[in-house]
Amino acid sequence: MTLTLEDCRALDKQDPLAPLRRLFRMPPGVIYLDGNSLGPLPAATAGRLQAVVEQEWGVGLIRSWNSAGWFMQPQSQGDRIGALIGAGAGEVVATDTTSVNLFKVLSAAMATVQARDPKRRRLVSERSNFPTDLYIAQALCEQHGWTLDLVKSAADLPAALGADTGILMLTHVNYRTGAMHDMPAVTAAAHAAGAVCIWDLAHSAGAVPVDLRGANADYAVGCGYKYLNGGPGAPAFVWVHPRHASAFKQPLAGWWGHAAPFAFTPDYQPAPGIARYLCGTQSVLALAALDCGLATLEAAQVHGGMTALRRKSLALTDTFMTLVEQRCAGHGLEIVTPRAHAQRGSQVSLARSSGAHAIVQALIARQVIGDFRAGDAASGEPDILRFGFTPLYLGFEDTWHAANHLREVLETGEWQQARFQQQHTVT
Amino acid sequence: MTLTLEDCRALDKQDPLAPLRRLFRMPPGVIYLDGNSLGPLPAATAGRLQAVVEQEWGVGLIRSWNSAGWFMQPQSQGDRIGALIGAGAGEVVATDTTSVNLFKVLSAAMATVQARDPKRRRLVSERSNFPTDLYIAQALCEQHGWTLDLVKSAADLPAALGADTGILMLTHVNYRTGAMHDMPAVTAAAHAAGAVCIWDLAHSAGAVPVDLRGANADYAVGCGYKYLNGGPGAPAFVWVHPRHASAFKQPLAGWWGHAAPFAFTPDYQPAPGIARYLCGTQSVLALAALDCGLATLEAAQVHGGMTALRRKSLALTDTFMTLVEQRCAGHGLEIVTPRAHAQRGSQVSLARSSGAHAIVQALIARQVIGDFRAGDAASGEPDILRFGFTPLYLGFEDTWHAANHLREVLETGEWQQARFQQQHTVT
Repeated sequence: MTLTLEDCRALDKQDPLAPLRRLFRMPPGVIYLDGNSLGPLPAATAGRLQAVVEQEWGVGLIRSWNSAGWFMQPQSQGDRIGALIGAGAGEVVATDTTSVNLFKVLSAAMATVQARDPKRRRLVSERSNFPTDLYIAQALCEQHGWTLDLVKSAADLPAALGADTGILMLTHVNYRTGAMHDMPAVTAAAHAAGAVCIWDLAHSAGAVPVDLRGANADYAVGCGYKYLNGGPGAPAFVWVHPRHASAFKQPLAGWWGHAAPFAFTPDYQPAPGIARYLCGTQSVLALAALDCGLATLEAAQVHGGMTALRRKSLALTDTFMTLVEQRCAGHGLEIVTPRAHAQRGSQVSLARSSGAHAIVQALIARQVIGDFRAGDAASGEPDILRFGFTPLYLGFEDTWHAANHLREVLETGEWQQARFQQQHTVT
Repeated sequence: MTLTLEDCRALDKQDPLAPLRRLFRMPPGVIYLDGNSLGPLPAATAGRLQAVVEQEWGVGLIRSWNSAGWFMQPQSQGDRIGALIGAGAGEVVATDTTSVNLFKVLSAAMATVQARDPKRRRLVSERSNFPTDLYIAQALCEQHGWTLDLVKSAADLPAALGADTGILMLTHVNYRTGAMHDMPAVTAAAHAAGAVCIWDLAHSAGAVPVDLRGANADYAVGCGYKYLNGGPGAPAFVWVHPRHASAFKQPLAGWWGHAAPFAFTPDYQPAPGIARYLCGTQSVLALAALDCGLATLEAAQVHGGMTALRRKSLALTDTFMTLVEQRCAGHGLEIVTPRAHAQRGSQVSLARSSGAHAIVQALIARQVIGDFRAGDAASGEPDILRFGFTPLYLGFEDTWHAANHLREVLETGEWQQARFQQQHTVT
């Protein structure tokens, strides 16, 4: 059955989440399909920042560390993130960057594994994992004499888990393809092999339902500026299962993770639990913006929360895939995101053997903002056109127009104009 | 000669820096003597943040990483910080927290030292150094089998430097007492002993002239939210002398420190120079606020820059010390900040055997905002009333009123009221 614009409009009319779009300030005419890279501006953020800057900082000055609750923000926002990812209260802190937090949990996980079995010194991950995760892992493996073992595809994971595997480190939803791991099953397989499991939730938190406790995961990190709408470079987060949280220190032993941070004693005594994963003083402005980002997800609670958001996300991505198949056929696009619901996140990735970057640029010129991810010739990975679908602010008509612009860009050949061919820097 | 209010007013009239106060939004009636803990709000910051939030983020969305120059902010702001601390262009980055940056430089310094002489495994610092610096050092010493040797006072430093010393790590201006090290002489002594020298400039950058290159220092870190007025939890900074910068990787090997951050290759290749000290994605909002903070110091350039600021800072602190001696005598206060100009930063610390916390609280109730630093009974350190004097926004009349309030709080005994006696949390 051919999907029409009218069908999409009808779906929007029935969408109970449609009013949530008003929680954002979206520039007119833009179809924003890059919330998986940078979430858009919530309507509340500018006013909140104004108040934090002018009142809390400007008038309250140093007193606001107490009176405005600045000091507890990493914990209180951590609790709210925890509610989105199946973690208990007091198990998550919002702090630092994803890379720095991964360094903390990998360091702690290595110590945990070594204490149990010094022979386990192999860290397994995927070659297609987010590069910065691999860089952090590579540095720690070099430092501690571990081997970093990168499998070429998820199918190779079971065979890679062995008696010398200490850690399995994966990104839940692949940033390129949108493929999603079965977190409970993969975690169980890691445990069965005697390893601990670390999950990067950068493309999961706020995008798909996550149940860290239900999956019996060990450690997790994630990002505040993608689906959590916390603003460019927002604080990241870190979760550690309580069975591990107080077991080892992480090496970034700063004052904010001290058991008595205001005693100013010269000796470091780590706080119990997740607080020891804090380090230095965090940006209050960045945390205030993250606070407003989290509120956009919390506003969906009355409509069914992550379950309802996931239902709509799958409907949006199903619709987009169908439209690409029906309206953009014959232009060399291949849908690389898995069709099965259980196997994908909240994005649709299209591969094309050439021109992907120029096509994305031509779409951006038409105000359809997705992004380009370069392939890797060495491993046979293709170039990717990536489109994130965020049910908080996108509707079915948006997917129709996005696919239609893609069709027009391809059929007119406008992507072959010189202005779209220049090399990218940040996309 | 007794200093009078009229004398102070006359000094303000002659002060060429007095108009700079207009660069800040100071709440009416407040005498803010805690800029060494949190710099006040610059007048430009709220508007700038508004523009970054509503235009760059809200309208530009993901495109602003390129079009608004977000990606180069750590370097461009680093260059401007470098100009305040005697570092060359391309030698400083603004990023992460002071604690995290100290972890990076300590890790690199340990590797540098070990490559030269594996027997040097002692890190010397002061017991009175900022606690979080000691915590980070302690964690790295434990990890790498080094000894952390804390001397009780600066006078003990020369004797502590020996054939097994690898690193001397000091805070240039002591956060409690305001005592300042002679950076060139101490660095030379460390080098003569075969050690490298790491400086924490938290209470120096923007407060006193610093010449890292002139002092031939090796590594430095510092804070963006004190004298640089970058806002609560502002990004910190890190400097590495070019002779070391490309020699070793630091272990926080995130994507922003990669030689080709947008190639997304699975292998980490550190960028040449200071860029390898970047790790994860930084808060654009926090960097925008830091940008406005740096501009307040740059506005002093036409009046003589750090030299003129230092001249006024010393005059303010001299005046306050004189007023405390002349007007607050007989109340058990002891000035613990060195009187000699070359030996102190931009603050005045007063010790008192009891009541220091309540006296600070009583002053805050009178809108004179200094802070309290608890002593350490074990090492005989007294409780401290700490008053920072920032020449950008304070005048001589402010010092007179501050001393006068202190006198009145002591003479009336109002600090002994129950409401000032409660325990502090953050001060």
